[in-house]
Amino acid sequence: MAKVREARRREEHEIEFSRIIAFSDGVFAIAITLLVLNLNVPAHIQGDDLSRVLWDQRQDMFAYAISFAVIGRFWIVHHRFFSDVTGFDGRLLALNLFYLAWIVLIPFSSQVLGDHGGDPAAIVLYSVNLSVVVLVGGLLFADARRRGLSKVSDEDALENRRRAGFIAAIFLASIPVALIDGHAAQFLWLALFVPVLLGLMRRG
Amino acid sequence: MAKVREARRREEHEIEFSRIIAFSDGVFAIAITLLVLNLNVPAHIQGDDLSRVLWDQRQDMFAYAISFAVIGRFWIVHHRFFSDVTGFDGRLLALNLFYLAWIVLIPFSSQVLGDHGGDPAAIVLYSVNLSVVVLVGGLLFADARRRGLSKVSDEDALENRRRAGFIAAIFLASIPVALIDGHAAQFLWLALFVPVLLGLMRRG
Amino acid sequence: MAKVREARRREEHEIEFSRIIAFSDGVFAIAITLLVLNLNVPAHIQGDDLSRVLWDQRQDMFAYAISFAVIGRFWIVHHRFFSDVTGFDGRLLALNLFYLAWIVLIPFSSQVLGDHGGDPAAIVLYSVNLSVVVLVGGLLFADARRRGLSKVSDEDALENRRRAGFIAAIFLASIPVALIDGHAAQFLWLALFVPVLLGLMRRG
Amino acid sequence: MAKVREARRREEHEIEFSRIIAFSDGVFAIAITLLVLNLNVPAHIQGDDLSRVLWDQRQDMFAYAISFAVIGRFWIVHHRFFSDVTGFDGRLLALNLFYLAWIVLIPFSSQVLGDHGGDPAAIVLYSVNLSVVVLVGGLLFADARRRGLSKVSDEDALENRRRAGFIAAIFLASIPVALIDGHAAQFLWLALFVPVLLGLMRRG
Repeated sequence: MAKVREARRREEHEIEFSRIIAFSDGVFAIAITLLVLNLNVPAHIQGDDLSRVLWDQRQDMFAYAISFAVIGRFWIVHHRFFSDVTGFDGRLLALNLFYLAWIVLIPFSSQVLGDHGGDPAAIVLYSVNLSVVVLVGGLLFADARRRGLSKVSDEDALENRRRAGFIAAIFLASIPVALIDGHAAQFLWLALFVPVLLGLMRRG
Repeated sequence: MAKVREARRREEHEIEFSRIIAFSDGVFAIAITLLVLNLNVPAHIQGDDLSRVLWDQRQDMFAYAISFAVIGRFWIVHHRFFSDVTGFDGRLLALNLFYLAWIVLIPFSSQVLGDHGGDPAAIVLYSVNLSVVVLVGGLLFADARRRGLSKVSDEDALENRRRAGFIAAIFLASIPVALIDGHAAQFLWLALFVPVLLGLMRRG
Repeated sequence: MAKVREARRREEHEIEFSRIIAFSDGVFAIAITLLVLNLNVPAHIQGDDLSRVLWDQRQDMFAYAISFAVIGRFWIVHHRFFSDVTGFDGRLLALNLFYLAWIVLIPFSSQVLGDHGGDPAAIVLYSVNLSVVVLVGGLLFADARRRGLSKVSDEDALENRRRAGFIAAIFLASIPVALIDGHAAQFLWLALFVPVLLGLMRRG
Repeated sequence: MAKVREARRREEHEIEFSRIIAFSDGVFAIAITLLVLNLNVPAHIQGDDLSRVLWDQRQDMFAYAISFAVIGRFWIVHHRFFSDVTGFDGRLLALNLFYLAWIVLIPFSSQVLGDHGGDPAAIVLYSVNLSVVVLVGGLLFADARRRGLSKVSDEDALENRRRAGFIAAIFLASIPVALIDGHAAQFLWLALFVPVLLGLMRRG
């Protein structure tokens, strides 16, 4: 039914191409910033002092930190992927939108996690959300590559797959752990920060 | 009263032109991301477990998925339209803003739909909102073309009209159905995903 | 105390310059999109049907329409102004931020207007907010021009002043009217749409 | 474990580089605009008039003004810093994200400040948040410079350090003051506006 369109070359459609990137960046930037709305303190506090109420937000703060790091990480991966993309078509656009739909869900999953961190269902929701992001992202990247829309080198593709696999493995592993102990599952997630810390500690 | 301005050629005013696109993309990106705010789970759940509460959000999730797909689709159409625009004037800007005003309403209509999905009024609100987007979009595109501000080919214009008409037809058709059965009307909307699925299944 | 910096020429600092525009556009796009958050319908409606509740939102819808048109209009004026800017310095940046601070207030004033449209205080708040935007905008434009940072022609500067003055006049005039009759003051605002309608009706 | 990547030169990766800036600008623009959500007036006011309720928002308005000025200021500093950046690598990206995570927290700290301005805990939270922004920003700038990724002149680096130090000093100084008198601490913050006012008063 729909007309078969040729993929458009990036260099001939630079403006259209940069719109795809600008739109994606906008979605990432908004999703990461909306995380702050999950933190809040009631305007009127009765019979309790503010420092105590703030301290009770530590689970929300934890969810904020994890989710900020995770969305930031996905953005970097998306960023690297698109720097190697050489053309686009309707299918790439559709997959990219599908990918973004799962990124945008993260503030919701993160809010549930912040409010119900001890409940296995919250951990499972969060882990499933992030695992699907990784899965769909991998599909997007592999599909673009297979169809010749990406000039990513084999080495970098492997590197990306390794990074994505690392994130997915942690979240998938945390699901069974969560069914036993929700807090233990979240400790597992701290492993996400290891590569970042290694990167920061490495001498420039 | 207002001075008659000549349309400005795109190539002579590249920065101004790209601002129009950047602003529109920003609005699309924010509107699509605000959809996540329609999903939420109370911080304190009494006498019910979280997985049950999450399950009760399925109507909200459905509204989220439909609205994300719809706004994404409109963005792609807008994107294609502007890639063929060769000039702009105050009227194009005004129509584009008017168009965006209806895009920005979608998160509201979507929230009503998520909370009151069984109510015909919610379906009618949502269908009217999306039909107006298609109508105003068609007006915007046709007007720019008629006044020589778009170099879209006849073939692509027809294609765009066909896509827009397809979306509008589904939503308009769902209004009478909604008055009889709200849930049936929403099943009708699933037809929106057919072209996307066809696009994804088509071999690259 | 602070070092005197020379104004930076636009053509030598294109990236920095376009960041100022991109940031401003982002703020405009977000402010205009946040207007939708002022529309909402409770998730649980008791003893009343949805179509009635939606109908009761008409004052909120009115505030949405007016504010969308107004922010959109200010964006177009800002857009035209910056297309003639040839350089920037710290003072231009500071004034631009001060201007944006009043743009960002509009969703708040608009929310108060939507919820308390019959109350003179709501009309005064809204009118003052928009008048200050026009005033600060005028200051920003005049200051840039006086210091040689804008190559706007005399004719266009006059046109801009006339447009801005038209908006400011309507809102300032509505303040005394509001103290007598809040609804009459809002009817006055409909005059804002006259130039837009004239523009749309003008043959292309 | 992770492959050692070379820093990428800005001029060879202009699109990737501008995405980093666009993403950061997006985050700044959204964070500054979300401040408006901290202002709100209940839809139904009982036994009190609207002008009184608006007047009671003055602490929220104060928090809005201070936070808008502060985020705007940080944006200008970030803007200047990146105009001198000549290359980027994973570490710069990670530090920039870490920096942004503290920028995005400001609307939260600002909300707490607006609602609980007289409480020392609110002042301390706000002061700590802003001091960490300055600290992490200083780290980001110094690190990029040390590793040859920034061509900022010694003079400008000094200037930036002086500006950042000025902001940090005010907020750190306000912490002990807050423990004695919350309102006095906030008066201290008004000193932040001194350089802006000096800048505006300076003849063009």
